Amino acid sequence: ALAAPAIAQEMPEVKWRLTSSFPKSLDTIYGGAEVLSKYLSEATGGKFQIQVFAAGEIVPGLQAQDAVTEGTVEACHTVAYYSWGKDPTFALGSAVPFALSARAMNAWQYHGGGIDLFNEFLAGHNIFGLPGGNTGAQMGGWFRKEINTLEDLKGLKIRVGGFAGKVLEKLGAVPQQIPGGDIYPALEKGTIDASEWVGPYDDQKLGFYKVAPYYYYPGWWEGGPTVHFFFNKEKYEALPDAYKSLLHTAAQAADANMLQMYDHLNPIALKELVAAGAQLRPFSPEILDGCYKAATEVYAEMESANPAFKKIWDSLKVARADWYLYNQTAEYTYDTFMMIQQRNGTL
Amino acid sequence: ALAAPAIAQEMPEVKWRLTSSFPKSLDTIYGGAEVLSKYLSEATGGKFQIQVFAAGEIVPGLQAQDAVTEGTVEACHTVAYYSWGKDPTFALGSAVPFALSARAMNAWQYHGGGIDLFNEFLAGHNIFGLPGGNTGAQMGGWFRKEINTLEDLKGLKIRVGGFAGKVLEKLGAVPQQIPGGDIYPALEKGTIDASEWVGPYDDQKLGFYKVAPYYYYPGWWEGGPTVHFFFNKEKYEALPDAYKSLLHTAAQAADANMLQMYDHLNPIALKELVAAGAQLRPFSPEILDGCYKAATEVYAEMESANPAFKKIWDSLKVARADWYLYNQTAEYTYDTFMMIQQRNGTL
Repeated sequence: ALAAPAIAQEMPEVKWRLTSSFPKSLDTIYGGAEVLSKYLSEATGGKFQIQVFAAGEIVPGLQAQDAVTEGTVEACHTVAYYSWGKDPTFALGSAVPFALSARAMNAWQYHGGGIDLFNEFLAGHNIFGLPGGNTGAQMGGWFRKEINTLEDLKGLKIRVGGFAGKVLEKLGAVPQQIPGGDIYPALEKGTIDASEWVGPYDDQKLGFYKVAPYYYYPGWWEGGPTVHFFFNKEKYEALPDAYKSLLHTAAQAADANMLQMYDHLNPIALKELVAAGAQLRPFSPEILDGCYKAATEVYAEMESANPAFKKIWDSLKVARADWYLYNQTAEYTYDTFMMIQQRNGTL
Repeated sequence: ALAAPAIAQEMPEVKWRLTSSFPKSLDTIYGGAEVLSKYLSEATGGKFQIQVFAAGEIVPGLQAQDAVTEGTVEACHTVAYYSWGKDPTFALGSAVPFALSARAMNAWQYHGGGIDLFNEFLAGHNIFGLPGGNTGAQMGGWFRKEINTLEDLKGLKIRVGGFAGKVLEKLGAVPQQIPGGDIYPALEKGTIDASEWVGPYDDQKLGFYKVAPYYYYPGWWEGGPTVHFFFNKEKYEALPDAYKSLLHTAAQAADANMLQMYDHLNPIALKELVAAGAQLRPFSPEILDGCYKAATEVYAEMESANPAFKKIWDSLKVARADWYLYNQTAEYTYDTFMMIQQRNGTL
């Protein structure tokens, strides 16, 4: 057989399908996969194409990871903690309670061994993963009534998933799993008392402030959640070297781009939400302390039950301790001074 | 003439030279250009190459921008405020006192119009620029003696450049321009009283803690400085579309990568510096307030004297006001809670 010309071999046509866990209406988080697709296609003159499908078009949003593992599609864009029920280790790649902020998460992933550690685990699910976005610290969500004490959490029906739900259960709350579209009527009727979602820009679209006006922060279960691109491992490994490298570069750029977009849009949306009637409330120290203690218990249980979990969590904990020591110096004091100016009206 | 095959046209050989403003010893900031070069070369099978030269190999570090404007080289990696003396508007693309943190700077640049606004200005210098790294909030630098009051700043000989120097001058300090390699002996002999540099990881290499042990924070003149890739405008515009897009993608990835690297390395270096004898000190409220007021006066002078400056500064100020309102909610309270755990030894 005649060898194809070298230059053509270097740029074969690759057409992949990517199933997103998100609806098109979330232009921020759904948009992250479109950004990856655009970067790849443009850089290769259309030769490396990833077609993006919204949640439900191929498989439901929560089954995106399975579709990649099984090879139904070559790629997905998802949050790893959606697969928490299979193995809690999945959650460590995205966000677990009281872990890393967005910057610390990125530092750990790209330079502290996080990407490699998580891929050791993902390989067992036939996946190669790369960070594909971050929302920044999320808000704690929308509450119909003010909550001030741990007592107020008892019996509270709150729409929240996975790990955070397990922590809140320890404190007597009743976590609920409800798809995004059903939250508003449930809050309106009082079927649930509270719901977390993402942050101001995404939350604004769903209008929760009209039926559950107390907008709590911070979302201590998602201090800086990573969204992931998952690739079917064999499909990823079969890519030519140039495409493989480009995929890493484009994913790193798309990863950064999502947080950049949120950080531009959230501040504007927050002002609009407050103008529309949202009541901002910080979680009380009592509630944060109680949740932190409960989370520590959950971690202890998982560490002893799951060696894969323990291996990654140990690495994350070192990064966490180093970051929150360092962060007390320049970064935090700079932010604090600037926020004082904001409050004084001198910005 | 015979047309070249379409596929070859799409991937022509491009070989550019990039002059860095930094020495190779700063693997973080110098390394940013190597990262860009690697991403481009790998994605194109070696066809789009940027050869990186350290400061001084082609032109001195502070003349990198001129070399791009004049077309001596196609590209440079620099901090825009190095060209502050020609026009203070240059500084707005990188960092000015009491402006944006790294995340806010990225949000403004990529989604708040910052990149386009800055390029309107750069076009007048025959440059197209893209963000190419960020150090995060810098430290305030190394001082031989403690400083607590504005009185202590009077007559203080401090190695600091550009905009910050102008602000400190208003308060009676005596800014000095000294190349990196000359700082240590000047501090040792007491020719200068203090010097700013970057942050723990880079500062550690120069050993300042031995001769000026008081390590102040924050570096209020660099809350989140952007490092830039500058490209000669005609050379950039002559690129094929695929390379142009790839250049944007690779630059966005390299930009993110530098902060990720600093955020991993700085926390480790800070612990080592403190163990070696560095004395951490926050700037006092009196000093920060005084510097903020002096900076506000400098801004007022520049706004009225320089319409190009005013146009970009007006946009930055809107982003700043929005960010430091928003940042008071989830992000800051999450960080605060986590830092309390660090101090309590419960992380």
